[in-house]
Amino acid sequence: MMHVVGYHTTPFGELWDDSLFGLVKKVIDNLLADANLDIKEIDAIFFANMLGGVLENNLHAGAKIAEMTHTNIPVFRVESACASGGMAFHLAQHYLLGQRAKTILVIGAEKMTDYAPEQVVTGLAAAASGEEQEAGLTFPGLYAMMAQVYLQKFGYTERDLAAVPVKNHYHGTLNEKAQFKRIITVEQVINSPYVASPLKVLDSSPISDGAAGVVLSTDPAVVKKIKHKTPVLACEVATDSISLSGRRALDSIEATKIAADKAFVRAEIAREDIGVAEVHDCFSIAEIIAMEDLGFYKHGEAARHIVSGETTYGRSNGMVVNTSGGLKAAGHPVGATGIKQIGEVYLQLTNQAGRRQVKSVRYGLAHNVGGSGGTAVVTILGG
Amino acid sequence: MMHVVGYHTTPFGELWDDSLFGLVKKVIDNLLADANLDIKEIDAIFFANMLGGVLENNLHAGAKIAEMTHTNIPVFRVESACASGGMAFHLAQHYLLGQRAKTILVIGAEKMTDYAPEQVVTGLAAAASGEEQEAGLTFPGLYAMMAQVYLQKFGYTERDLAAVPVKNHYHGTLNEKAQFKRIITVEQVINSPYVASPLKVLDSSPISDGAAGVVLSTDPAVVKKIKHKTPVLACEVATDSISLSGRRALDSIEATKIAADKAFVRAEIAREDIGVAEVHDCFSIAEIIAMEDLGFYKHGEAARHIVSGETTYGRSNGMVVNTSGGLKAAGHPVGATGIKQIGEVYLQLTNQAGRRQVKSVRYGLAHNVGGSGGTAVVTILGG
Repeated sequence: MMHVVGYHTTPFGELWDDSLFGLVKKVIDNLLADANLDIKEIDAIFFANMLGGVLENNLHAGAKIAEMTHTNIPVFRVESACASGGMAFHLAQHYLLGQRAKTILVIGAEKMTDYAPEQVVTGLAAAASGEEQEAGLTFPGLYAMMAQVYLQKFGYTERDLAAVPVKNHYHGTLNEKAQFKRIITVEQVINSPYVASPLKVLDSSPISDGAAGVVLSTDPAVVKKIKHKTPVLACEVATDSISLSGRRALDSIEATKIAADKAFVRAEIAREDIGVAEVHDCFSIAEIIAMEDLGFYKHGEAARHIVSGETTYGRSNGMVVNTSGGLKAAGHPVGATGIKQIGEVYLQLTNQAGRRQVKSVRYGLAHNVGGSGGTAVVTILGG
Repeated sequence: MMHVVGYHTTPFGELWDDSLFGLVKKVIDNLLADANLDIKEIDAIFFANMLGGVLENNLHAGAKIAEMTHTNIPVFRVESACASGGMAFHLAQHYLLGQRAKTILVIGAEKMTDYAPEQVVTGLAAAASGEEQEAGLTFPGLYAMMAQVYLQKFGYTERDLAAVPVKNHYHGTLNEKAQFKRIITVEQVINSPYVASPLKVLDSSPISDGAAGVVLSTDPAVVKKIKHKTPVLACEVATDSISLSGRRALDSIEATKIAADKAFVRAEIAREDIGVAEVHDCFSIAEIIAMEDLGFYKHGEAARHIVSGETTYGRSNGMVVNTSGGLKAAGHPVGATGIKQIGEVYLQLTNQAGRRQVKSVRYGLAHNVGGSGGTAVVTILGG
C-alpha cells in the first residue's frame, strides 16, 4: 500500500531571502528530519517546477538537486505549467507502482517575486498556446472569457464570484504558511481593480515564492515507523486542447471531468465521502467551474452553494474546500501548488491541520490544473 | 515483457520549414501508421524537450500535443538537459512497469536553428550550474577542461581526439537521416578552428532541429502483431553534481559508471555481449571518456582503441559505436537525441539499419548524458 508519510512546506509569499534551490533544500532537509530518514533511504526525487528555465536559466534541476543533497539517485524535473506538482505526484506514484523504488520525495517549488512582472507574466503565458499568446491573451483574459460565459449562462453576478476569494482569504487566516492571512469582504473584492472583466485583482491568485514536498512510500518498514500517514487511493491525469478554441465548452473543463471520473472509480469511493478538497482556484471562476467538473455540484449550481457558505470552514456540514486558503490566499508558487494541495489534504487526514482542522474527515481530494485546463490532475487520499 | 515496437525519426539538420510541434506531429503520425495503431490505443505520451520554454515560450507541451492528436490521455514533458530523451524513456518504462498503461509513445524533439546563436548558447548553458554560467563557462569550455586533464594524464594528443568525429562522420554517410553525410579527415579536424582548446569545431556536435519517437509496449496483442520489435532489458539513471567542481574527477563521469553498472546487472548480460552502442559524443572527448565509464575499456585506454578503428563500421570485429553518426554527424537536436540513440539500437537489433547494418548483433546499448555529466542514462535492448 502506498502512503504519504510526510509533508513540509515553506511559507508562501515574497521570500526575498531565499533562492529557488535554497527553498528546495529547506524542504528536503525538513522532510528527511521529520520522517527520520537519511537521503540514502530515498530511491528517487521528482521535482515540479515551471519557470526555472525562463527565469533562472536552469534546465538541469535534477543534477542541481543531486549536488545539493550529495546523492546519485535519479532526480526528475516535471514541468506541466501550473499542474507541474500534480503531474510530479502522478509520475512518482507510477514509479512506485513499478516496484523498483520504495520511497520517493516529491518536491515542488517556484521563485517568482525576484523578477520583473513582465518576465513572470510572459513566462506564465507559456502555459497558453502560441496562438493565444500571439493574440495577446494572458491567463486573466482566458479565465475572464470562461467567467463571462458562466455568469451570462446561469444569471450570476460578479458578487457571486467574490464568494470564492472571501472564503479562501478567511481560510488563509487559519494557515500560518499562507501568503495572505487577512480577511477580505465581498465589497473589497467588488471594488478592487479589474484585471480582465469580470475578474478583478481580488479574484486572482498572486505571484508567489515557495516550496513544498511530500514523502511517498511503499516500504512497510518506513510506513510502519511513521505516525502520521495516509494512503494514496488515486491520482489520475487527463489532458485537453491547450487552446480554449479547441474545447467543447468554455464554462467547463473537460480534463477535470475525465480525471475526476477516473479517480473516483480507482478510489472506489463516492463524491459524498470527500471531507476536504483543495481545488485549483487560480481565479474565482476556476473554483466554481471545478466544483461542478469534479462532480460535487450540478452544472450551473456551484456558485450559489459556495455563496451559501457550505464549503466554508466552520459553516460547512459537509466538505470544506481550500482549507489552506487555496491558490488565492495561501499563494501560488506554481510548481509548489500541486504538492501543497496534496500536503494540505494529508494534514487534514492526519489531524495536523491546527486551527483549520476539519472534524471526522476520512477522505480528501486535491485538484490541480495546468493553463486554462489543458491538463488536470485529481488525487484522492485517505481511508 | 516490454518491447520497443516502433521507431521513427525526421531527418536531423536545419529544418527551416518545420516548427517544433510540426516535427512532433510528423513523428507521432508516422509511428502510429507504421505500427498500425490508433491514438486511442495509446495510454500516455512522454515528450522529451529541453529548450521549448526559453526559445518558444511553451511550458505546457503536454496539452499542445493533446490538442494536435485529439486525445485526453496523459502527456508528460520531461526535461533533463541533453539527457531529456533518455530520462523520458526511463520514466515511460517505469510507467509501464506500474501496469496501469500498456502502450506508450516516447517522443523527443528540439528546434534550435531558427534562433540567434546567443539565445541557443545561453539556453544550452542552462544545463550547467549557476556558478559555472556566472564564470562564463559554456559547454565547449566544460568539456575542454575534461579533455585537458585526459590528454595530459595519459599522454594523448589532439590527433587522438580527432578519431572520434572522423569515425562518426563516416557513419553519418551511411545514415540518410544524418545532418552531416560527408567524410572528414583527421587533418580537417586538426585544422578546424578552436572552440575551447583542445576542442575544435569538428570535435563538437552541431546545433540541430529534429524529432524522434519510439513506441513502447507491454501489450501482448500489440507486441504480437508487430514484426520489428526488441525487448527492453534495462534503462537506468544516475545523477551527480551539476558542477564540475563537485566531481571526484574530471576525466571520468561518475553518473555514467553508476548507471552502466546498474543497467548491466539489471540486463544480466556482460559488456562483451553488446554489439552496437550509441554513446553520447557531444564532444570528441565525451565519447572517449564514456567508453571507459561504460566499462568497455580500462581508464586511459579508450582513445587508442578508437584510433585503431575497432569501433568503426566495417573495420570492427566487435562492437560498433555510434552507427547513426552519433551526436557529431547525425546531429544533436537535444530532446530528440536520447530517443534517436535508442531508435538506432532498435534499427540495428531488428535488422533495419540498411547500409550501416551490423551483422549478428544481439544486444545494444544507448548512453545519454545531461550537461557535463550531472545526469546519465544507460539503456540496454535486445535478447
